[in-house]
Amino acid sequence: MPKKTTMEQKIDFSTFSPTDYRYVVAALSDYLSEEAFVHYKAEVEAAIARGFTNKGILHDNLCAEIEQSASKVRAAEVYDEEQRTKHDIRALVNVIKSRVSTDAKPFVHLCATSYDIVETANALRYKDAVNKVIIPDMIALERAWIDLTRREKDTLQMGRTHGQHAEPITFGFAIAQYVNRWGSQILKVRDASDKLRGQLSGAVGAYNATALVFNDPEEFERDVLTLLEMKPAAISTQIVPPEPMSDFIHSVITSFSILANFCDDMRHLQRTEIGEVMERVTEGQVGSSTMPHKRNPITFEGVKSLWKKFMPQIVTMHLDQISEHQRDLTNSASQRYIPELLMVFDHCVTRLTRSSERLVVNKTKMRANFASSEDTIIAEPLYILLSYYGHPDAHEYVRKKTFQAYNENKSLRELIEAEDDEEVLSYMKRFTQEQRAMTFDAEKYTGIAAEKAEKVADYWERVLNGL
Amino acid sequence: MPKKTTMEQKIDFSTFSPTDYRYVVAALSDYLSEEAFVHYKAEVEAAIARGFTNKGILHDNLCAEIEQSASKVRAAEVYDEEQRTKHDIRALVNVIKSRVSTDAKPFVHLCATSYDIVETANALRYKDAVNKVIIPDMIALERAWIDLTRREKDTLQMGRTHGQHAEPITFGFAIAQYVNRWGSQILKVRDASDKLRGQLSGAVGAYNATALVFNDPEEFERDVLTLLEMKPAAISTQIVPPEPMSDFIHSVITSFSILANFCDDMRHLQRTEIGEVMERVTEGQVGSSTMPHKRNPITFEGVKSLWKKFMPQIVTMHLDQISEHQRDLTNSASQRYIPELLMVFDHCVTRLTRSSERLVVNKTKMRANFASSEDTIIAEPLYILLSYYGHPDAHEYVRKKTFQAYNENKSLRELIEAEDDEEVLSYMKRFTQEQRAMTFDAEKYTGIAAEKAEKVADYWERVLNGL
Amino acid sequence: MPKKTTMEQKIDFSTFSPTDYRYVVAALSDYLSEEAFVHYKAEVEAAIARGFTNKGILHDNLCAEIEQSASKVRAAEVYDEEQRTKHDIRALVNVIKSRVSTDAKPFVHLCATSYDIVETANALRYKDAVNKVIIPDMIALERAWIDLTRREKDTLQMGRTHGQHAEPITFGFAIAQYVNRWGSQILKVRDASDKLRGQLSGAVGAYNATALVFNDPEEFERDVLTLLEMKPAAISTQIVPPEPMSDFIHSVITSFSILANFCDDMRHLQRTEIGEVMERVTEGQVGSSTMPHKRNPITFEGVKSLWKKFMPQIVTMHLDQISEHQRDLTNSASQRYIPELLMVFDHCVTRLTRSSERLVVNKTKMRANFASSEDTIIAEPLYILLSYYGHPDAHEYVRKKTFQAYNENKSLRELIEAEDDEEVLSYMKRFTQEQRAMTFDAEKYTGIAAEKAEKVADYWERVLNGL
Amino acid sequence: MPKKTTMEQKIDFSTFSPTDYRYVVAALSDYLSEEAFVHYKAEVEAAIARGFTNKGILHDNLCAEIEQSASKVRAAEVYDEEQRTKHDIRALVNVIKSRVSTDAKPFVHLCATSYDIVETANALRYKDAVNKVIIPDMIALERAWIDLTRREKDTLQMGRTHGQHAEPITFGFAIAQYVNRWGSQILKVRDASDKLRGQLSGAVGAYNATALVFNDPEEFERDVLTLLEMKPAAISTQIVPPEPMSDFIHSVITSFSILANFCDDMRHLQRTEIGEVMERVTEGQVGSSTMPHKRNPITFEGVKSLWKKFMPQIVTMHLDQISEHQRDLTNSASQRYIPELLMVFDHCVTRLTRSSERLVVNKTKMRANFASSEDTIIAEPLYILLSYYGHPDAHEYVRKKTFQAYNENKSLRELIEAEDDEEVLSYMKRFTQEQRAMTFDAEKYTGIAAEKAEKVADYWERVLNGL
Repeated sequence: MPKKTTMEQKIDFSTFSPTDYRYVVAALSDYLSEEAFVHYKAEVEAAIARGFTNKGILHDNLCAEIEQSASKVRAAEVYDEEQRTKHDIRALVNVIKSRVSTDAKPFVHLCATSYDIVETANALRYKDAVNKVIIPDMIALERAWIDLTRREKDTLQMGRTHGQHAEPITFGFAIAQYVNRWGSQILKVRDASDKLRGQLSGAVGAYNATALVFNDPEEFERDVLTLLEMKPAAISTQIVPPEPMSDFIHSVITSFSILANFCDDMRHLQRTEIGEVMERVTEGQVGSSTMPHKRNPITFEGVKSLWKKFMPQIVTMHLDQISEHQRDLTNSASQRYIPELLMVFDHCVTRLTRSSERLVVNKTKMRANFASSEDTIIAEPLYILLSYYGHPDAHEYVRKKTFQAYNENKSLRELIEAEDDEEVLSYMKRFTQEQRAMTFDAEKYTGIAAEKAEKVADYWERVLNGL
Repeated sequence: MPKKTTMEQKIDFSTFSPTDYRYVVAALSDYLSEEAFVHYKAEVEAAIARGFTNKGILHDNLCAEIEQSASKVRAAEVYDEEQRTKHDIRALVNVIKSRVSTDAKPFVHLCATSYDIVETANALRYKDAVNKVIIPDMIALERAWIDLTRREKDTLQMGRTHGQHAEPITFGFAIAQYVNRWGSQILKVRDASDKLRGQLSGAVGAYNATALVFNDPEEFERDVLTLLEMKPAAISTQIVPPEPMSDFIHSVITSFSILANFCDDMRHLQRTEIGEVMERVTEGQVGSSTMPHKRNPITFEGVKSLWKKFMPQIVTMHLDQISEHQRDLTNSASQRYIPELLMVFDHCVTRLTRSSERLVVNKTKMRANFASSEDTIIAEPLYILLSYYGHPDAHEYVRKKTFQAYNENKSLRELIEAEDDEEVLSYMKRFTQEQRAMTFDAEKYTGIAAEKAEKVADYWERVLNGL
Repeated sequence: MPKKTTMEQKIDFSTFSPTDYRYVVAALSDYLSEEAFVHYKAEVEAAIARGFTNKGILHDNLCAEIEQSASKVRAAEVYDEEQRTKHDIRALVNVIKSRVSTDAKPFVHLCATSYDIVETANALRYKDAVNKVIIPDMIALERAWIDLTRREKDTLQMGRTHGQHAEPITFGFAIAQYVNRWGSQILKVRDASDKLRGQLSGAVGAYNATALVFNDPEEFERDVLTLLEMKPAAISTQIVPPEPMSDFIHSVITSFSILANFCDDMRHLQRTEIGEVMERVTEGQVGSSTMPHKRNPITFEGVKSLWKKFMPQIVTMHLDQISEHQRDLTNSASQRYIPELLMVFDHCVTRLTRSSERLVVNKTKMRANFASSEDTIIAEPLYILLSYYGHPDAHEYVRKKTFQAYNENKSLRELIEAEDDEEVLSYMKRFTQEQRAMTFDAEKYTGIAAEKAEKVADYWERVLNGL
Repeated sequence: MPKKTTMEQKIDFSTFSPTDYRYVVAALSDYLSEEAFVHYKAEVEAAIARGFTNKGILHDNLCAEIEQSASKVRAAEVYDEEQRTKHDIRALVNVIKSRVSTDAKPFVHLCATSYDIVETANALRYKDAVNKVIIPDMIALERAWIDLTRREKDTLQMGRTHGQHAEPITFGFAIAQYVNRWGSQILKVRDASDKLRGQLSGAVGAYNATALVFNDPEEFERDVLTLLEMKPAAISTQIVPPEPMSDFIHSVITSFSILANFCDDMRHLQRTEIGEVMERVTEGQVGSSTMPHKRNPITFEGVKSLWKKFMPQIVTMHLDQISEHQRDLTNSASQRYIPELLMVFDHCVTRLTRSSERLVVNKTKMRANFASSEDTIIAEPLYILLSYYGHPDAHEYVRKKTFQAYNENKSLRELIEAEDDEEVLSYMKRFTQEQRAMTFDAEKYTGIAAEKAEKVADYWERVLNGL
């Protein structure tokens, strides 16, 4: 593999894509920049030459010439040559050939078609980007959430459905949902990138070219790809079957959607009236150009916004699943944008990791919000226990009491404690001590929230440790 | 499981959705109609009652009452009740309760929240729909394509890239691509539906309600779901984590996109000028209301069109991955449309099965199209073998010859056969007999198309037989 | 126009599409049901016959036969015939012909191609649906919002940006945004539906058929369409140019997005902690199957959810803008779903009208929320007036004070009132009485919110009255 | 307006977005690059200062200082400052302030909120980009198509529906469809960009800040925007109503879809078997890295591919129509990508202009394709004239003859010329000389294709000349 150095990040403001001037992840340059892509393609060309050498067809010295030339290729020279040839891979081939002896020249790109190189190089670099940067970054976020889950596993919070106070949970339990969902996605992204495939099957996938010189052209394909630690597609046209890429993109966008969900949760918990969490800001930071007192959830807003931009790219992927006959080229430009998606996704992952690690949790506000509803949420345990002990229509009974409480501006608890209906009282008498506590002390009505939070955190920590 | 009879299909033209008046698959009624949904929800309610009985809490007779009442529920009565309650699950509960004794009433829906029922019922019925109808239908299409692959594995066809004649393949090889892609999707759809999960974890997922009455509420959840042959989510809010559903929808839409690709391929092969395949039409069928001679690829057009309608629904799924806090309800109406997607997909699968089984392959036209380019496609083998035997710039040599041929209105073969350049001839002399044949007889330059087609067909037949 | 009676709504639970079993708008049956579509197509066929009669080619009696037969066509008989012909328009033609004399038969559908009928009928019925139902329903919502704007124009509310308290507005001012956005869309939807076009230009749009019998076939097209109060496209293929339909769909979906925005606003204002608005519920209504105390914003959630389902259909429309050559048929099935979009949109409009008319506004809570921040929002006016009177770095000064307030747990007002810095005091002395009031009494710092709300309400009322 | 020089295009291969390294349109740098954006924002800041001067509040000299400082702002310094403030507009303000005297400082950005600047600057620059580059480029393509329409107005071509030969047209007529569709979009894009609006209404849109110092803050807003030749929104929150932007994006994407349609048409007409058109290639150009004989429609493929990437961005726009309350920030990052869409669209327009101007039309192949079906397409005129002269079931008669022709491997013409059925002959005798010619000489059965093509070309030329 050609040696690559992390390119120094310098911003060029004559650029148009915000990805380049705002959301670059330097660590991904070695895999996802256009420069890196050229390197990867050259690496595939080198592997093909090595394949011929391993078959005893190309002298080792000549192969070494090709490998060395390939390792030196730079994007700029390939683009210059493309100006002349109007064909990117032929340009690459010409550049490699320009630095090798006459005897080596014929073996550059021999038997290969452009997309043998492109498909294989893409599979390789996406896999590398995933394994070397994206998965580690995803794991870092998972660890941040595991930590948060553990730290807040007993922190009482009001569970909310429909934006309404519902039943008690703990804040750690709420975060544990993300630990579970995100953990599953780490495995899926890794698995999906693993299933990307290369090829060396020629212009229409039938090994027409390699069958000219090998009895078993599939073996040659396998051997070359093995040099790259890659496997061939079961069958291909000019391109590999698009579904593994579709699955990979899906795994990334589905993960992205989880981030969007988390951001929405945090944004709303940071609302002035709710105030249960807050993005930590530094003293120098300006919240608003005109409202100096504002504390805005800008990371959560920014990630949600990038999701809105990139999520619809899944439609492009489905459009690109269609390629006429042995291939049309209408997926070429569109698939060039896959690295951008990966990079912006990773950018969001790392931003959220920082925010999650530094998240300010306002337990006082959490408890105050909880307290504001604790008298009404007894409705559920009450109705359930009344039913459990035989009340034939407990739900309706409680629902009416709730309306009564609302109309009389009393708490449900007050009404229930003042209940004198004999039938109801007869059921209530059967409540155990513990049941009575869980019913009338809302803080105790958290189910198994804390245990579950811990269990989920433990499970995923074990999984991560095993990766 | 409540007994269900396949509902007789009757078309109601006062309906608005073309799905209902044009694309209904009767076999899916038992799983995907609104009537079926109500049955499945009632089945989950019955399982909960049985769970209490298995715990020794509810008398077996009372449980049987609930089960019997649940098995009789009809959608119409639930909707009537919903008019009053404005809540669909409470309506269902009321209907079930209305037919049981006072002692059984409290145990209907006890400890459950609406979405315990809805999520579990949906997972159940989608799994059933997949296993009982969709997978068998997908397999039938796979078999049709395997047959076609085998029948046409040696049928010479010109491979096409960019819509241009490229290099030779066989028609069976072209179809084998679909065998491979579709086969993979059969496994993925099945796998994704298998991973759908149910829940019995209460209003905010913390088992608040069940923890009132059970020491190990997760065990109770597991037991009830086991009665339904379903597993619980690792952790849930009011709803199960949305990613398994996202993966399932993705597997279906990705499969749908393969159908769209196949349709485009066939549509273009049926173009008047190409004429290599044709949808079989019956004598009575009208091709055009005003052009009686037309033979239109209406199935291929129809399926492509339905894909254009339903593919973007993947965006809805990603939007639905976001649910605030322990759940907001903005995924309720949208997720109601999942059955429609499944049904239209299945409709397309079966339509294409019929069309594939009856596909008219015009071998004469295939061969004529092939012949029109056979003299030019020698360019590739020639360039490769020249390189292989040491020509340092064979690609450029052949490219120029091709332009010369074009300009002089000759075939490339003519020019090459008349070649008198000593250097070129010296390389050509080294071609083996077989290589010469593959170069100058385009019919022989099909690589391993036929073998690969057969190999793929064999592989997937074995897989299907093992399902 | 054929007499149509509003079809009685009866729900068939064997259907699959929730549109049919949950979201039907009965008033749209006459335009958007499949039955209605058949009527409209028959109406176009009748107009063509009348066109021949007006040209003196077809005897008035024979034309009357055709018109009468057309007016009696029912969808069921057309579908029966389609079973035989496999072609929907030829089926319609056969049905019309079956009821006229031999001399009239040849003039049914004469010179027309299927899509002359389909395109024209769709343009007609969508225009009718818009003018007769959708625009009136949109106006009703606009009036509800105008009323709300007026009623609440002086109701003090804290303006929110980033979910954070920002600067004061009035609730009427917030609603006036919707009055303005929605009002603009009413005009756009009407305008876009007006620009839908019909055609009578034949199988490939070149008037091949009509040029056989008319010297000026464009005149014949114009005349027939005029009978239907419709205009022809400037030029067409087998279909009209798709952009007017794309613009129409865009106008509807863009309007739908406004509803989604309104729903999100209301959902969040209804959050337990905020509690500024509430969907009115009736006593019988169940908020949750297990939490009787819940008051859920179900209309706002439901509409948002339907938007999530239908918004992505804009992608389908863009896909349908592509039709190969003089037309391929891959837009046929997909465009059949346009009526569904229109109907669900209208369903949402009317649901939100009811909710808006009955919206509970909790002024007490609004004021309490306001009060909780009134001491900090003086930051903005203070900074602006300090700048205005010459402080060179007022923003920074105020920002630091805000942090100080936060750290010392004081209100910004307290700190400012205790300010003893001479420079700052020198600027503050220059504030006018009114400016001082606006700065230190947050209730007065509402800018022109109330006047603007009224102005917008007045403007749109005048526009509506002029429609 | 700050002087801007077209930035020299230099490619930086460490970038990630293909937009930056492959699809840059240099002419758009002055409007759409990040550098340009900073200039435009500075220009708005300068206009605000001028507004204060025009009101007699700010001395002209101080205003000139601000204007001069604003005109010198460079993106790099703003980004440096943003590193410190974490707020892009406050960074810009600080940079402008850093170069003016203490007395001028307070008037920089006075009374404005960030999005007053951002929204106004975006509206301005998009309008400029449209008027100065995009519309001229769209017009150039329209003129290329008008020329093509005129040149080919009489070129006989077989019209195609369903990919099948249908009825005759001319190639100019086919292109005239695009002249009409594209011409309409030029007007719509211009109109939509004209309707973009600016604002100076403050943090929540209620003019809270400007009302501190002006009696009529709307007048101040109008005056400042007039300096920029821009109009204010009727009412705004912290942002302008999003629908005008949605309409603008829609107009661009709808136009893009027309390009995609054109590309598909050309791609298919360039298929080897059809061969009616061809992208002109230069001698140096490589068609395929391994198949030197290929002539690929790479421009048509490339544009279609970019459309697949950018079309789904319409979904982002609809998502961005939703902003909670007086604004959340989740549309900030996403809207930053609008310039990229505009630039890639313009890139495609200019590429297609070149391809259209240089399109190779193979009239010989067109005629040969035509000839292959001319004997069967008499079906339509025959059926119509038979009907016209009274045959009661002409469509069915012709349909059966067509099947007979197919089965007997004869041409329809042969069968009809040999017809001896008295009834049929009696109708045929009534055909006029001209009708007979149009029926039996397919070349004459082009309807009014040529006239219509010319008419459309003339109409749009007049429109363009009037722009």
